[in-house]
Amino acid sequence: MSIISLTTDFGDLYPAAMKAVILGINPEVRIIDVTHSIRQAGIREGAFALYSLVPYFPAKSVHIGVVDPGVGTSRRALAIKAGPEGEGQFFVGPDNGLIIPAARRLGNMEVYEITNKEIMLNSEISATFHGRDIFAPVGARLSKGMPVETVGDKISDFVDLDFENFGVDRQFLVGEVVYSDNFGNVITNIPEAAVLKFRTFGSQVEVNGRKVSFVQTYGFVGQGDALALIGSHGFLELAVNKGNAALQFGLRSGDPVAIRVL
Amino acid sequence: MSIISLTTDFGDLYPAAMKAVILGINPEVRIIDVTHSIRQAGIREGAFALYSLVPYFPAKSVHIGVVDPGVGTSRRALAIKAGPEGEGQFFVGPDNGLIIPAARRLGNMEVYEITNKEIMLNSEISATFHGRDIFAPVGARLSKGMPVETVGDKISDFVDLDFENFGVDRQFLVGEVVYSDNFGNVITNIPEAAVLKFRTFGSQVEVNGRKVSFVQTYGFVGQGDALALIGSHGFLELAVNKGNAALQFGLRSGDPVAIRVL
Amino acid sequence: MSIISLTTDFGDLYPAAMKAVILGINPEVRIIDVTHSIRQAGIREGAFALYSLVPYFPAKSVHIGVVDPGVGTSRRALAIKAGPEGEGQFFVGPDNGLIIPAARRLGNMEVYEITNKEIMLNSEISATFHGRDIFAPVGARLSKGMPVETVGDKISDFVDLDFENFGVDRQFLVGEVVYSDNFGNVITNIPEAAVLKFRTFGSQVEVNGRKVSFVQTYGFVGQGDALALIGSHGFLELAVNKGNAALQFGLRSGDPVAIRVL
Repeated sequence: MSIISLTTDFGDLYPAAMKAVILGINPEVRIIDVTHSIRQAGIREGAFALYSLVPYFPAKSVHIGVVDPGVGTSRRALAIKAGPEGEGQFFVGPDNGLIIPAARRLGNMEVYEITNKEIMLNSEISATFHGRDIFAPVGARLSKGMPVETVGDKISDFVDLDFENFGVDRQFLVGEVVYSDNFGNVITNIPEAAVLKFRTFGSQVEVNGRKVSFVQTYGFVGQGDALALIGSHGFLELAVNKGNAALQFGLRSGDPVAIRVL
Repeated sequence: MSIISLTTDFGDLYPAAMKAVILGINPEVRIIDVTHSIRQAGIREGAFALYSLVPYFPAKSVHIGVVDPGVGTSRRALAIKAGPEGEGQFFVGPDNGLIIPAARRLGNMEVYEITNKEIMLNSEISATFHGRDIFAPVGARLSKGMPVETVGDKISDFVDLDFENFGVDRQFLVGEVVYSDNFGNVITNIPEAAVLKFRTFGSQVEVNGRKVSFVQTYGFVGQGDALALIGSHGFLELAVNKGNAALQFGLRSGDPVAIRVL
Repeated sequence: MSIISLTTDFGDLYPAAMKAVILGINPEVRIIDVTHSIRQAGIREGAFALYSLVPYFPAKSVHIGVVDPGVGTSRRALAIKAGPEGEGQFFVGPDNGLIIPAARRLGNMEVYEITNKEIMLNSEISATFHGRDIFAPVGARLSKGMPVETVGDKISDFVDLDFENFGVDRQFLVGEVVYSDNFGNVITNIPEAAVLKFRTFGSQVEVNGRKVSFVQTYGFVGQGDALALIGSHGFLELAVNKGNAALQFGLRSGDPVAIRVL
């Protein structure tokens, strides 16, 4: 029994079409919705969602990502195998960077272009919904054990994307907002190791000009107080205890963040 | 192993009660949420959601639809079998038109009134939640192979609903908005064949007085530009590349649309 | 084959991490999302959601509740067994009252503190996401038949919570809003028996100063008219036929409600 995860900006309705196609091909597979609420065309945000979750999935899981503003144009479709031999996972999605960070995180990344029409939906391929017509059927077949080489040729010139644009600039640790969650917690691309080299828990830092405590968890500051912490995904996160940091700091995905030592 | 789909205006909580009842009766069935975000009492919108998805479901799927403003009044409860002999699918829901277009799309529609109390929930039937007390248990039993005739008598005077109110009026192709999706794409009831008889891809049309390109997909116009296209569901759709057509055109479900040849 | 239900204030993304962990441990279990839209830190609201649904789940179901503002602080983690011997269900969540009303409703409640690190996630436990690192793996193991005693010691000094703060005060029946659903229906903590002792269907009552009909279902009043009824969960509910009672009455979770006999 294997798992397919879905990460899209579809909202409702369209994921159900993908699931109907998937279960029609592999009735045994288990489907996990990562999210269907990525903001429209939010490729970087979708990439982070999948990247942050992939370590928790078992071997042989198949991850379908569809944040795809270029659907129906000349952009290519990809299938990727990654991870230790025999313990690998698979990724399916458009060639726009969406599925790259998650796959690279597992190591041993092999990228293929999907061109084999025989593994796509058994009907005309729409110009606007490759999630249903290409990515769902290809993902379902991979979950049944189809070798990844069946999809088409191996390539190396895929569109790349990473979360490595962080660093230290004088007394500032600088990075970028990559996700804002349901609580309004603001997740940056600055990893735990970089933060802990810079500051220790229990100290104060200044985030975009506002002083906050750097602590282990939300309940360590007063209700309504802002804090910086290492989130469960292993990145620096800004939060407000029982409040909404995204609103209070006016930060959203893609915005720069500068942390200053006090 | 069979599939049950759910289409409701319930939001959260209530679908979980239906799923608990379903899995209590048929622990093997797979459940697909079509949507629980139909606007309150949006029967026509719910009907379109189910209608647009039904071709992608495998034989023997059971579709439970519950957009049911008349729950607990004298409105009847229906079970329908439709589709080719031995390849049929089933539909369960209130007698208000909701499940008719999807069932009719499969052909060979047989409509039954649900009156058999022995196949309902094994407790008092509430006046307000037939999704849990009637439709979920009946759908679960159909998914286990219960013959549809078990539910009650065959009827022919069900409440009807269709999406056929479109047509050509001088230089206008006129129809109605049936759905607005998560991207703000506005889906009309005008089918592909009617559109292609009227216009060819690459031309310009005027939608409710605004000039737009009629093209195959979103990426064929500039960012922020409006377009008309044939959506993945096979109907004329209005969209804005990386924008929200529902907001820009001020259109919502039920509104009239007039397309003019330029 | 058993069932795990999830009740959280997580929105998206985080529930997927829990599901990946759960299916990694028990690939056969079926997962039902009760809701992930409890408002932030809405312990009482989450408790009612789970409480209202638990009677519809089959024996051996495992319910994971995570509305957990105290995560990573000294608050304890609980596992509970409740219900008739051999027909029991299990509850997992933080020691803040969230899972108590649902468990108590089944009777024979045995409460244990989770301290056994060997049944938690096989890696460092984060300070902010015990849903993924503790509650998901413990719930998954309970669903595979692990005896509840394995989690740690039995305790009796857990944080309690109930919905019993209702009563009659002169000509008023008074209580509290415990949930507001997707339709804007306002659900109170006043149970059916207390209401029916006070009023009969077909009469008029005054709710927070506004006169409404007390009837069996929504369609028994005109469109846009307010009504009081016994909801499908067995509690007094305020509604507006095809409208939003929460908005019209200005009521939200925690607000007091006073019903006056007319």
